Amino acid sequence: MRRGTEANLIDKIASISRGSRFVKTGIGDDAAVIDLPRGRYVVTTDTLVERIDFLPDELPFWIGRRAAAANLSDLAAMGAGPVGCLLTLGLPARRGLDYGWKIARGVTSKMAPWNVPLWGGDLSRAREVFVTLCLVGRARRPILRSGARPGNRVFVTGTPGAAAVALAARRRNRGRPPRADERAHLDPTPRIEFARRLERGRLATAMIDVSDGLSLDADRLARASGVALELSGAKSGTLSTSSDDFELLFCVAPKNIEAVLAAARQTGTPLSEIGRVVRGEGIFRLKDGKKRRLAPVGYDHFSR
Amino acid sequence: MRRGTEANLIDKIASISRGSRFVKTGIGDDAAVIDLPRGRYVVTTDTLVERIDFLPDELPFWIGRRAAAANLSDLAAMGAGPVGCLLTLGLPARRGLDYGWKIARGVTSKMAPWNVPLWGGDLSRAREVFVTLCLVGRARRPILRSGARPGNRVFVTGTPGAAAVALAARRRNRGRPPRADERAHLDPTPRIEFARRLERGRLATAMIDVSDGLSLDADRLARASGVALELSGAKSGTLSTSSDDFELLFCVAPKNIEAVLAAARQTGTPLSEIGRVVRGEGIFRLKDGKKRRLAPVGYDHFSR
Repeated sequence: MRRGTEANLIDKIASISRGSRFVKTGIGDDAAVIDLPRGRYVVTTDTLVERIDFLPDELPFWIGRRAAAANLSDLAAMGAGPVGCLLTLGLPARRGLDYGWKIARGVTSKMAPWNVPLWGGDLSRAREVFVTLCLVGRARRPILRSGARPGNRVFVTGTPGAAAVALAARRRNRGRPPRADERAHLDPTPRIEFARRLERGRLATAMIDVSDGLSLDADRLARASGVALELSGAKSGTLSTSSDDFELLFCVAPKNIEAVLAAARQTGTPLSEIGRVVRGEGIFRLKDGKKRRLAPVGYDHFSR
Repeated sequence: MRRGTEANLIDKIASISRGSRFVKTGIGDDAAVIDLPRGRYVVTTDTLVERIDFLPDELPFWIGRRAAAANLSDLAAMGAGPVGCLLTLGLPARRGLDYGWKIARGVTSKMAPWNVPLWGGDLSRAREVFVTLCLVGRARRPILRSGARPGNRVFVTGTPGAAAVALAARRRNRGRPPRADERAHLDPTPRIEFARRLERGRLATAMIDVSDGLSLDADRLARASGVALELSGAKSGTLSTSSDDFELLFCVAPKNIEAVLAAARQTGTPLSEIGRVVRGEGIFRLKDGKKRRLAPVGYDHFSR
């Protein structure tokens, strides 16, 4: 009996979809059936598109890992831990189904440390590759963008702007397995463990992930909180970079700074203090004692 | 202060995202925060891609409605009612953001009868339009594909193959507002109310939505249930059509047939009995007393 190649790929993906937490019926019916306990859930979806979010000749396994990292970073920004996900693949016929299989393996490999099951998904032909993940997580007290208060200090994990440097390295090494210096672009580390500690300890008043550039995302947090941010500790180069670092920008009341630094040490998370929250609106840079308003610069899909 | 046009569209979509059921924090943070009661949930995702699932010059409002219908149909196939959704749009720069806005309005208008909130989503540039919805629903006892038993009767809602006829009509009228005879392609009716009655009354043993063609989806249900289906009542033309009707194919124990017919009357759902479940595997057609095995024919994204 003829069976579509599409069905074969779906069977193959179902065979590697991990874990069974909450799952009553997984891949293979019209929809997945999930038994969820009562609670506060966090849902996000993030899409990578060929030429926009990754190089056209990128290796599919690494496209999958990057898609997973982008979505995990959104959960980290809420202080949430992942519970389950759905994967949608758009694939040009010329790529072949093995290409889709490698993307799926990349996604599941990146999710593996948290044992996140693939609840389901969809597969379609398309003119260019796109990868959409929908990720569900949980957090008792999700950390919003809107809780920053004057007097808070501003921190950022990792090295903002590193993804832009890594992308440049990747361009020179394209089509080959990534080297260590390409990881910040291709395989960023979701800051889930660190963010979970911030959430459990109520250590951050507001948080956002830096996905479109430090100044643009800092401006979004300031706007949501109705405050201004003075960013004296950030290098001016990183503020004007439109970089998708998937690092966390967050605000901390002074009494919690020691606990935040301890959480960073315990989870091996690089951390920099880059400024403070003040009354007002927008973002500013302090240099030689002078305060200069910054225009939020970053990535917008439709403004260029 | 400069704000991206992308942010403007997201704000606009947030303003029409309906209802607040379960929603603690909606569009505008890194992820949506949803308070869910304990229960059995059903999650599905379905994508429409330009040229594959709709004509390139289709009107965006109707693309949105069709995307919503496809996802609602997956929930109906489980006997579930919708709870919330996430919308991802891939948009070519030449289309402009107003095009995305019209798709979003189409989605929300189609979801409106069930008051389904838009929890969140994503927006990306792309070479061709794609629309991905992730839809969450609930059902106490979801109706799977795997419960059909010999002796059950086989029913189908609506008119299988109607979408193919309507697509042909749409091709002749393309670019203009759809006429009534184009609805089965462009604006199919999700059978949610009827399916909810089947679920609440435990009236169906197995169910699937006909999204890739009657014979292919009947074969999927037979395979999942470990049975064979004799399809004597279906017109042979409709069996060989690769049609995305979004109608329901389901199996009923004889004692429940009266209740099923009553549910169809009460919800205004057209219904046909097209066969019965027997021991064996695969799908058969009875004609002039002779039993002939049918090859499942239908849509596979990658086999042609």
